[in-house]
Amino acid sequence: MATASRGSNARASDHVREDRLWQRHMDMAKFGATPKGGVNRQALSAEDARARKLLGQWAAARGWEVFTDPIGNLYVKRPGTDAGAKPVLSGSHLDSQPTGGKFDGTYGVLAAFEALEALDDAGIRTKRPIMAVAWTNEEGNRFQPGCMGSGAFAGVYELDTLLAGTDPHGTSVKQAFAEVLEAAPARLEPKLGFPIDSYLEAHIEQGPILEATRNEIGVVTLIQGMRRFYIDVFGEEAHSGTTPLKLRKDALKSACSMVTALEPLMADPTDTVRYTVGRFEIYPGSPSTVPSKVHFLIDLRHPDLATLKRLGDGIAPICEAEAAKRGCTVKVTEYTTVEPMPMEANAVSLVRDSAKALGMKHMDMVSGAGHDAMHVAKVAPAGMIFVPCWKGISHNETEAATARDLANGTRVLVDALVALANR
Amino acid sequence: MATASRGSNARASDHVREDRLWQRHMDMAKFGATPKGGVNRQALSAEDARARKLLGQWAAARGWEVFTDPIGNLYVKRPGTDAGAKPVLSGSHLDSQPTGGKFDGTYGVLAAFEALEALDDAGIRTKRPIMAVAWTNEEGNRFQPGCMGSGAFAGVYELDTLLAGTDPHGTSVKQAFAEVLEAAPARLEPKLGFPIDSYLEAHIEQGPILEATRNEIGVVTLIQGMRRFYIDVFGEEAHSGTTPLKLRKDALKSACSMVTALEPLMADPTDTVRYTVGRFEIYPGSPSTVPSKVHFLIDLRHPDLATLKRLGDGIAPICEAEAAKRGCTVKVTEYTTVEPMPMEANAVSLVRDSAKALGMKHMDMVSGAGHDAMHVAKVAPAGMIFVPCWKGISHNETEAATARDLANGTRVLVDALVALANR
Repeated sequence: MATASRGSNARASDHVREDRLWQRHMDMAKFGATPKGGVNRQALSAEDARARKLLGQWAAARGWEVFTDPIGNLYVKRPGTDAGAKPVLSGSHLDSQPTGGKFDGTYGVLAAFEALEALDDAGIRTKRPIMAVAWTNEEGNRFQPGCMGSGAFAGVYELDTLLAGTDPHGTSVKQAFAEVLEAAPARLEPKLGFPIDSYLEAHIEQGPILEATRNEIGVVTLIQGMRRFYIDVFGEEAHSGTTPLKLRKDALKSACSMVTALEPLMADPTDTVRYTVGRFEIYPGSPSTVPSKVHFLIDLRHPDLATLKRLGDGIAPICEAEAAKRGCTVKVTEYTTVEPMPMEANAVSLVRDSAKALGMKHMDMVSGAGHDAMHVAKVAPAGMIFVPCWKGISHNETEAATARDLANGTRVLVDALVALANR
Repeated sequence: MATASRGSNARASDHVREDRLWQRHMDMAKFGATPKGGVNRQALSAEDARARKLLGQWAAARGWEVFTDPIGNLYVKRPGTDAGAKPVLSGSHLDSQPTGGKFDGTYGVLAAFEALEALDDAGIRTKRPIMAVAWTNEEGNRFQPGCMGSGAFAGVYELDTLLAGTDPHGTSVKQAFAEVLEAAPARLEPKLGFPIDSYLEAHIEQGPILEATRNEIGVVTLIQGMRRFYIDVFGEEAHSGTTPLKLRKDALKSACSMVTALEPLMADPTDTVRYTVGRFEIYPGSPSTVPSKVHFLIDLRHPDLATLKRLGDGIAPICEAEAAKRGCTVKVTEYTTVEPMPMEANAVSLVRDSAKALGMKHMDMVSGAGHDAMHVAKVAPAGMIFVPCWKGISHNETEAATARDLANGTRVLVDALVALANR
């Protein structure tokens, strides 16, 4: 009979190899590398397929099973000693923003994979299987919504609706996934979702707090909520030289007024509200034609549910009032709603205890960014581990983290995973 | 010896054929036809080439010489009786807005061509040659600047600079023109520009005044001035969920503030100022990334030079103040400057007299739109004739004009051309 551990001499975290983990990041960063040192590896793209293929090759070298599910989530399974036990999952995502960095998402996948390797190297067997996972399309840039794979896994979204979604060029999720499977073959598990014991996700903080407070580990207690809206403004095309301003229905000026008019609603002395317009498209886009349409996106986040509700519900009335001032109309469509999601108390404690046992300076914190963990938390106890990133900069090609911080987070992760897997 | 005219029985305007002129408009509207009944025939595109080719075929059927110059202006020449006399020119443009109509520009070319045909049909010979011209890229959408061909002809722009300009896909004017020449061959006159006697341009009004006042003919006395600016706003990419608003350098919110903050400067109780933002592009355009760059265009027009100067000069300080409020920077680049251009007194009189002699209800007016005539007026006496268009709507697929109004404008044009050509 295998034992759950060889004992204290075989602490899994001692076998985390900082150099290997760093090299794996550099290897992955080649897929979609940008001239400025960042990564453009959008969901289910050719670059994403190459990243998935490499992960599969690393897993194969260890003899671990690799499989994918109908939304393209990719799993690497290290078996446990109890064949009937539900697995402990850990991971994040391999897709990036169009001008993203090397660490956002990729770190969580590689930390989970490094955890599996450290366990192997240490000769540690766990009762439950531990699986590394790369969730499909966390970023939500090429395809909507973000956190697509984890949301599908947790039953938040309908699979068929997701597969029918298209990118701006008209390519569907279904078609893009088929191309990925061809380029990076993996066994396709026909059923979406399966029971899991628990979930831990490691991630760079994407904020400045750990760096500023010289903490090595952030113990995430809550992921703030998010509401996303499409705002479609409709006016009327007209000649820029001849049409008097009073006779115009100018969708662009109307949309700009909306963006500005929402600022007082979003004003917050504690600077906790996150109000962002990250996409803004106008039509027809000719210098001498008054724009007739504007399509823009609002991303609103807050840790408090009541505040999130009040602010989000305040968007449409303000946009409608602005549209009316200029004879335009507006349609406000909420397309993503994620309530603030607390991490599970025991998972949070395990992460905190693991950091403490390793002597790392740590603090509890709220996640400003959304993560796959917020969906997975609906179907299993979930926790998150943050590591510092340079100046808190993320969604930016200059995003950076140190090899040491990445390894530290992985050490905390693997010890917490072992605790979960042997409960 | 041919005489300049067969006499009063052969008044050229009597030979203008409304049905033929209308049919030519419908034939041209097929090139770039949009589902909504408009036209998308951008400068030096394949559609533009097909329109040029058809004009050349019509000219060939009459035995008239067709040639082009190094910027792609296309000329059809009906000879005069005095071999050494400078020609009288008339025309406009065949390119359209991306969501344009059937008449803007095309009318001026077809009216000039109909004038030549009416003269032929009437057996009228003129002392000076009369030439119909289709100027290249009046709209300035695909390539910048607009009124490119007429500006080059009049020496306002450098030929080499224009040829090196590119569209958003990176195709240069030079390359696009070479493709047009291949698809629609015409003799290439290597020299740009030649002495002309005078110029008349017929155009739809693109404004509501003629229709509202039930006038048939607008006698243009002045083309208002225009200044165009690129506004480039620079901020910093950041994560929409984690980055506190106070730490952001949000190029999008900054650009929206600029558009709104310029409105008080442009406020005008007489509603004469034309302030338009017709293009607005943001980068990187991801829902969860604070935009780091916005590129937008301001089109400013006014009939009064001093006002145009004051308003245009006021743009940069306001944009800079708005940028500074959010830690952004901004670059304001004026890329087109056209002073208000009066039409030549004698040309204006001839147009007015021609309308009067034909018993048409007419009025003097200022052109709100820019036209090729504003450049040609720098090198020769120039005038313009406006005809009504439905509701004043233009730069819109629903743009419309009646066959009768188009023919009336052509009657005024041809009689005025004969007067100029026989002076």
